[in-house]
Amino acid sequence: MKKVLIINGPNLNRLGLREPGIYGHETLQTLEQHVKAFGEKQQIEIECVQSNHEGVLIDHIHAADTTFDGIVMNPGAFTHYSYAIRDAIASISIPVIEVHISNVHAREEFRHHSVTAPVTAGQIVGLGLQGYELGILALLKLKEGES
Amino acid sequence: MKKVLIINGPNLNRLGLREPGIYGHETLQTLEQHVKAFGEKQQIEIECVQSNHEGVLIDHIHAADTTFDGIVMNPGAFTHYSYAIRDAIASISIPVIEVHISNVHAREEFRHHSVTAPVTAGQIVGLGLQGYELGILALLKLKEGES
Amino acid sequence: MKKVLIINGPNLNRLGLREPGIYGHETLQTLEQHVKAFGEKQQIEIECVQSNHEGVLIDHIHAADTTFDGIVMNPGAFTHYSYAIRDAIASISIPVIEVHISNVHAREEFRHHSVTAPVTAGQIVGLGLQGYELGILALLKLKEGES
Amino acid sequence: MKKVLIINGPNLNRLGLREPGIYGHETLQTLEQHVKAFGEKQQIEIECVQSNHEGVLIDHIHAADTTFDGIVMNPGAFTHYSYAIRDAIASISIPVIEVHISNVHAREEFRHHSVTAPVTAGQIVGLGLQGYELGILALLKLKEGES
Amino acid sequence: MKKVLIINGPNLNRLGLREPGIYGHETLQTLEQHVKAFGEKQQIEIECVQSNHEGVLIDHIHAADTTFDGIVMNPGAFTHYSYAIRDAIASISIPVIEVHISNVHAREEFRHHSVTAPVTAGQIVGLGLQGYELGILALLKLKEGES
Amino acid sequence: MKKVLIINGPNLNRLGLREPGIYGHETLQTLEQHVKAFGEKQQIEIECVQSNHEGVLIDHIHAADTTFDGIVMNPGAFTHYSYAIRDAIASISIPVIEVHISNVHAREEFRHHSVTAPVTAGQIVGLGLQGYELGILALLKLKEGES
Amino acid sequence: MKKVLIINGPNLNRLGLREPGIYGHETLQTLEQHVKAFGEKQQIEIECVQSNHEGVLIDHIHAADTTFDGIVMNPGAFTHYSYAIRDAIASISIPVIEVHISNVHAREEFRHHSVTAPVTAGQIVGLGLQGYELGILALLKLKEGES
Amino acid sequence: MKKVLIINGPNLNRLGLREPGIYGHETLQTLEQHVKAFGEKQQIEIECVQSNHEGVLIDHIHAADTTFDGIVMNPGAFTHYSYAIRDAIASISIPVIEVHISNVHAREEFRHHSVTAPVTAGQIVGLGLQGYELGILALLKLKEGES
Amino acid sequence: MKKVLIINGPNLNRLGLREPGIYGHETLQTLEQHVKAFGEKQQIEIECVQSNHEGVLIDHIHAADTTFDGIVMNPGAFTHYSYAIRDAIASISIPVIEVHISNVHAREEFRHHSVTAPVTAGQIVGLGLQGYELGILALLKLKEGES
Amino acid sequence: MKKVLIINGPNLNRLGLREPGIYGHETLQTLEQHVKAFGEKQQIEIECVQSNHEGVLIDHIHAADTTFDGIVMNPGAFTHYSYAIRDAIASISIPVIEVHISNVHAREEFRHHSVTAPVTAGQIVGLGLQGYELGILALLKLKEGES
Amino acid sequence: MKKVLIINGPNLNRLGLREPGIYGHETLQTLEQHVKAFGEKQQIEIECVQSNHEGVLIDHIHAADTTFDGIVMNPGAFTHYSYAIRDAIASISIPVIEVHISNVHAREEFRHHSVTAPVTAGQIVGLGLQGYELGILALLKLKEGES
Amino acid sequence: MKKVLIINGPNLNRLGLREPGIYGHETLQTLEQHVKAFGEKQQIEIECVQSNHEGVLIDHIHAADTTFDGIVMNPGAFTHYSYAIRDAIASISIPVIEVHISNVHAREEFRHHSVTAPVTAGQIVGLGLQGYELGILALLKLKEGES
Repeated sequence: MKKVLIINGPNLNRLGLREPGIYGHETLQTLEQHVKAFGEKQQIEIECVQSNHEGVLIDHIHAADTTFDGIVMNPGAFTHYSYAIRDAIASISIPVIEVHISNVHAREEFRHHSVTAPVTAGQIVGLGLQGYELGILALLKLKEGES
Repeated sequence: MKKVLIINGPNLNRLGLREPGIYGHETLQTLEQHVKAFGEKQQIEIECVQSNHEGVLIDHIHAADTTFDGIVMNPGAFTHYSYAIRDAIASISIPVIEVHISNVHAREEFRHHSVTAPVTAGQIVGLGLQGYELGILALLKLKEGES
Repeated sequence: MKKVLIINGPNLNRLGLREPGIYGHETLQTLEQHVKAFGEKQQIEIECVQSNHEGVLIDHIHAADTTFDGIVMNPGAFTHYSYAIRDAIASISIPVIEVHISNVHAREEFRHHSVTAPVTAGQIVGLGLQGYELGILALLKLKEGES
Repeated sequence: MKKVLIINGPNLNRLGLREPGIYGHETLQTLEQHVKAFGEKQQIEIECVQSNHEGVLIDHIHAADTTFDGIVMNPGAFTHYSYAIRDAIASISIPVIEVHISNVHAREEFRHHSVTAPVTAGQIVGLGLQGYELGILALLKLKEGES
Repeated sequence: MKKVLIINGPNLNRLGLREPGIYGHETLQTLEQHVKAFGEKQQIEIECVQSNHEGVLIDHIHAADTTFDGIVMNPGAFTHYSYAIRDAIASISIPVIEVHISNVHAREEFRHHSVTAPVTAGQIVGLGLQGYELGILALLKLKEGES
Repeated sequence: MKKVLIINGPNLNRLGLREPGIYGHETLQTLEQHVKAFGEKQQIEIECVQSNHEGVLIDHIHAADTTFDGIVMNPGAFTHYSYAIRDAIASISIPVIEVHISNVHAREEFRHHSVTAPVTAGQIVGLGLQGYELGILALLKLKEGES
Repeated sequence: MKKVLIINGPNLNRLGLREPGIYGHETLQTLEQHVKAFGEKQQIEIECVQSNHEGVLIDHIHAADTTFDGIVMNPGAFTHYSYAIRDAIASISIPVIEVHISNVHAREEFRHHSVTAPVTAGQIVGLGLQGYELGILALLKLKEGES
Repeated sequence: MKKVLIINGPNLNRLGLREPGIYGHETLQTLEQHVKAFGEKQQIEIECVQSNHEGVLIDHIHAADTTFDGIVMNPGAFTHYSYAIRDAIASISIPVIEVHISNVHAREEFRHHSVTAPVTAGQIVGLGLQGYELGILALLKLKEGES
Repeated sequence: MKKVLIINGPNLNRLGLREPGIYGHETLQTLEQHVKAFGEKQQIEIECVQSNHEGVLIDHIHAADTTFDGIVMNPGAFTHYSYAIRDAIASISIPVIEVHISNVHAREEFRHHSVTAPVTAGQIVGLGLQGYELGILALLKLKEGES
Repeated sequence: MKKVLIINGPNLNRLGLREPGIYGHETLQTLEQHVKAFGEKQQIEIECVQSNHEGVLIDHIHAADTTFDGIVMNPGAFTHYSYAIRDAIASISIPVIEVHISNVHAREEFRHHSVTAPVTAGQIVGLGLQGYELGILALLKLKEGES
Repeated sequence: MKKVLIINGPNLNRLGLREPGIYGHETLQTLEQHVKAFGEKQQIEIECVQSNHEGVLIDHIHAADTTFDGIVMNPGAFTHYSYAIRDAIASISIPVIEVHISNVHAREEFRHHSVTAPVTAGQIVGLGLQGYELGILALLKLKEGES
Repeated sequence: MKKVLIINGPNLNRLGLREPGIYGHETLQTLEQHVKAFGEKQQIEIECVQSNHEGVLIDHIHAADTTFDGIVMNPGAFTHYSYAIRDAIASISIPVIEVHISNVHAREEFRHHSVTAPVTAGQIVGLGLQGYELGILALLKLKEGES
């Protein structure tokens, strides 16, 4: 496990600006810095991308298959309807950990169902921004488990 | 209320060409000219964008938050499944009026449900192209109501 | 378009008294005065009726067919179950605009569905008391569109 | 079987005026005259009432229990939601035949379900205005069957 | 209207033997004799068939198209699932009246829905064996209405 | 708590006459006398109204807001679909106790759901005519709890 | 009616500690003392049990059949899924009154449905701790009604 | 029929790499070469596009209306939720054949439903890569049928 | 691939007679001649059967297992409910292609779901009578793919 | 209990040939021999019939009513939709035991529901071919229980 | 097959006392004696346990894995919701036969669905107390089948 | 964060024995040792409990409120139906992290829904036994976040 890609989906560029009661005051930039610093401590190279475009996210997932060892992904609202992203995850062989910042099960009904979860390695939900760091740790342990 | 953004979603570039029985014979270009002329009369600056790309629409919504005073939006078919656009609207603080040209409640079942409506300020449905003008008036009155 | 009937359904006589967080502080009397004044400016004669009785509302709809040029109607809670009012609207030939003061899509699940909407000309939702005025404008434009 | 009450529910006063493609061109007045004439031939006294008011219909049903030998009723749109009329029918001991002029099973989904049917003696559906006459014949035969 | 076909579907050969609380004590043979006698009075030639075989019923419906003027049919349990019989009825041009002896709306849930009703001319439900006679009268009146 | 209004909805004027196996043999008149006598013992003034008209019930609820201290209401079949009565209850500030004579949960499926219950202070179900007396006691205790 | 068993189900030992906004500040101990005092006034012997164990509650219900004259039971969350408790209540011949402290119909969707209600004598819902006392009164009246 | 556009939707660029048990070992490049060679034999000019971006696919559909004679399209996962692509197909006048490589009806539940199928000319499902060639033949025959 | 069985289900003997707007004017006889002629060109022996009897269709499917190399089947309305035909297809080892003449997804809701599709090799839908020829080509290619 | 009829429904003639992983390798002929031998040991005369024709099965059920003492029936796929067979079973007075060879609850969703079960005496599911023998034993015991 | 455990779930200790119309007059004690006597004849050692506690039943299932050769279990009402008992059965390797005394498919809707059935070896339903004996025979045959 | 309670629900005592394809080969004992060792490294005192009894789990949750700083809980199958455990978690003020060893979203439908998730602080799903350790880390970070 040497390189991990962090993918943030639609509206996560609004972190800190958007509904701080739900998502907190930290911005995407700060989040990415923290996660990179955390990666450094774990001796993992971290790259971060964010996009509001479903197609761009699919392209990133495809490309990561040969250039990264794992993905930590917050698909944002696409979680609930993008079967295309689901198929993209199913089409690669590196593990994907799904992360949600807020406890989606305590919010609107439509947020309780994830169409991507069945093809990911696991989910970390409701634990705030530290969910990304736990996702990296989970990838590390999955790797250990294999070797 | 000085600047209003008019956003048209997928397939609205086909206005006049597409199913005239439902949408009439006026094109998007004519629609945009009429709306701008109407804005001028109300002393409001109008800008118009159209895209078939969900991600582009989300980017426009985000950008409008600091550059416009309100949005009149016809999300087209995204109305019925784009939770990502819903979250984009929820992430900004200027009011959004949802407009549908045709009476969606008198068409196919899937058009009866709007995933974006709950986070908009209001909806104007089935009143043809004049719905956009009513949307602008509605934004004006909302502004007045606040002051 | 010379004469427009404004119909308010059940509990709208409680405006200003009932749940002001949702419906505001203006009373039905004030609303009716404002709408009449607005009609005068548009050179339209306005009449207003309100009833908590489904049958009375149906009788008004029937009678309006030959004495008015259009109806702006807020069916209140009947919106969600009165197929009898739906059939009454379908049985007349003048246009009916459905108005809701609050954004019903952001409230309880049962308020998301309208049984009357499919047979009206259009809906104006969530825009407060100005929704009635926009409804009158919509009727005017519909008339223009015909001629 | 000496006296039969014919009850017509909401909007049936619009017969002949309303959607002639579905309901034909005969008016309620003509319908009532024909049914009375038919009753005369069968040596049955016929009374006819129509109301758009659910409560009025319920009052008629209650009153009929001691003054009529049977009811032929077209509950109109109340068929699909008025549990109060259902309970009224269940509370009397004379037989009620439910009649629908159009083939409700070939129309909108909501017209396929009758909440009153389970407590009536039977239904006659889709056979036009003659359905009322068949309803009277059915009551006659039910009476014969008992004796 | 000179010749009418009476079709009885599955298990109606058990009339009189089967659940007399629901279907009464008269047998299929008696029923057919009564209906034929009734036809004679109306100067209509009646033929009766019964089968428990869906395919046989479909063949009878097809054949009747050129040899009969109308059909009175009790599809028995096929009412609730035989889309093949529905299509057979839709494929002919003579009218079909659907009859049910018992009030199916007051019985098990699955008996409340008819897949054949939308393509028939009308339904007569819950009026016992006289339902067949009313069905013949209905065909007569439909014919009159046309001429 | 000085004055309590007892409201009985549709068909409750048929008490004693209607389905005695479910509702017992006591009539509405006797019920109202007993409840008034009970009120006297508790030093509360009781008024009783009954109507089969939804609109009349709504008018009574509105009027009670300023003239009574609480309502004990049996909405009858309106319980299951009258969102208009629900809104009427929500529009007043005195407490309403919902009473059902029979155990609605042990009857037909449609009687298991109450659209009015969420906006009442509480429900008393299945305890026969004494449910009204328990409702009055409940109002008394609610009042005590406040002071 | 000499002896009544009060049964409280899961988490009711947390009364006063748990979500006071919903359940108030009184503890289970105080509740039981008040109910016993109330019983004394009515000359009824009261026993109280509470358990978080479904099996223990079932054992108590069985045992009560020969040692008590009635039960007032708050099944807590078991209300919504314990068909085993439902069957236990159905297996005894003394009456059971179901009590809920809060108005379950105004809370989460899953709390609107009770699997135990159909086999109880009645329900008292949303009236706070006094619901238990009303339950005891209801049992008394049921007893009177029989004798 | 001179020019046909082949459109492949999201993740079909992963053909041969992705789940070979379901999609086989041939790549998108080979598929496109085969289809072009097949087109040549039929004397049809073939162009092929693939995109993971919903908006790009919509743009291609719009553009094809005036430059191609028909479309063979595999919408991938968009089949199951993209009402925007459905509307794009409905907005053009050349025929579209929907193709699925695998038998979607034998896979997960969500793949059984197509939101695009109702507005296409037909579907070819489960027949592997040859489905594209059959789609071209189908377009040819449709053209013949018209002339 | 030497011998192919063409099976047509219920009501397809009405082709040309039945609903020509949906199914065209060609009869079953012409269809079968065309398909046989087409088979000859492909050097395949074709046999055609049609039946309105579910059991006869099942017997044909069973018998074909050892005497044919593949089946092209239009199950007609049995598509939507005959689990018995589904099991018959699953019980043989030669491939079955399901064909529908009309675009079933653009018709009534009940025609959108196929209970047989999951156990067939593939489906060809909405392409008119040529669907049978495409089905034969598909069988040929499947055979090639194996060898 | 002297004579028992064993009825096997559609596709059970394919036993041993069809999906041996689910149904084993024994053929229908062997099954029938074993069951007859088993019957002999129990001094019961056994007759066996199998048909893929719903109508034939119904005819057998009717005929058995006066010539057999009980039926052991595996309705095959008809279990899940043949309300006609359900009614046939309900129309006879000898007991019917429903048998399924495989554990239908561990297979596809549609196999979990039996429309015939409610009118049979009982079901034996998932116990392989011995289920028929257990069915015969069950009939014997039911007979004993009566005497 | 030397030792078989008979497990009875909640409320089965009430056999003979509880709803004799459904469950008969025999008590649990008699049932257990009969089953043990039956086991003796088959040269199988039988042990019987009953509990109203889900956890106790799970503990018994776990313990049986190494000390019994098979289980005959009537899970009572837990059949319909205890996924914990389902998982307990799935976690052991000896076969479990599910028994229900009454025909659950002919009772309330909620009794039609078994969450435990998919992981048992088979079910015996509606055959009264002899169901337990048939369950033992089934286990014996399963054992034979293996050897 | 000084003391953390690890709670394992029903059937987790079968870890290593039960379905190793899903849950792996490690036993509950080894899991608890690893988690305790991990806790030591983080300077947290760990206690572990496991029970198959819902009531015992509820008692543990209640007791932990005053003696632990947080809980990591795997509710096993209770996740999907125990509203009583949900209420227990809601009744305490220390945070609870829900852990599932397997990816429940890739398993049976009923495992996709968690009734406990909405009242926990977050969920860690599908990451094997390391999920417990990540749960402990999550509690630590939550604590930090507060201070």
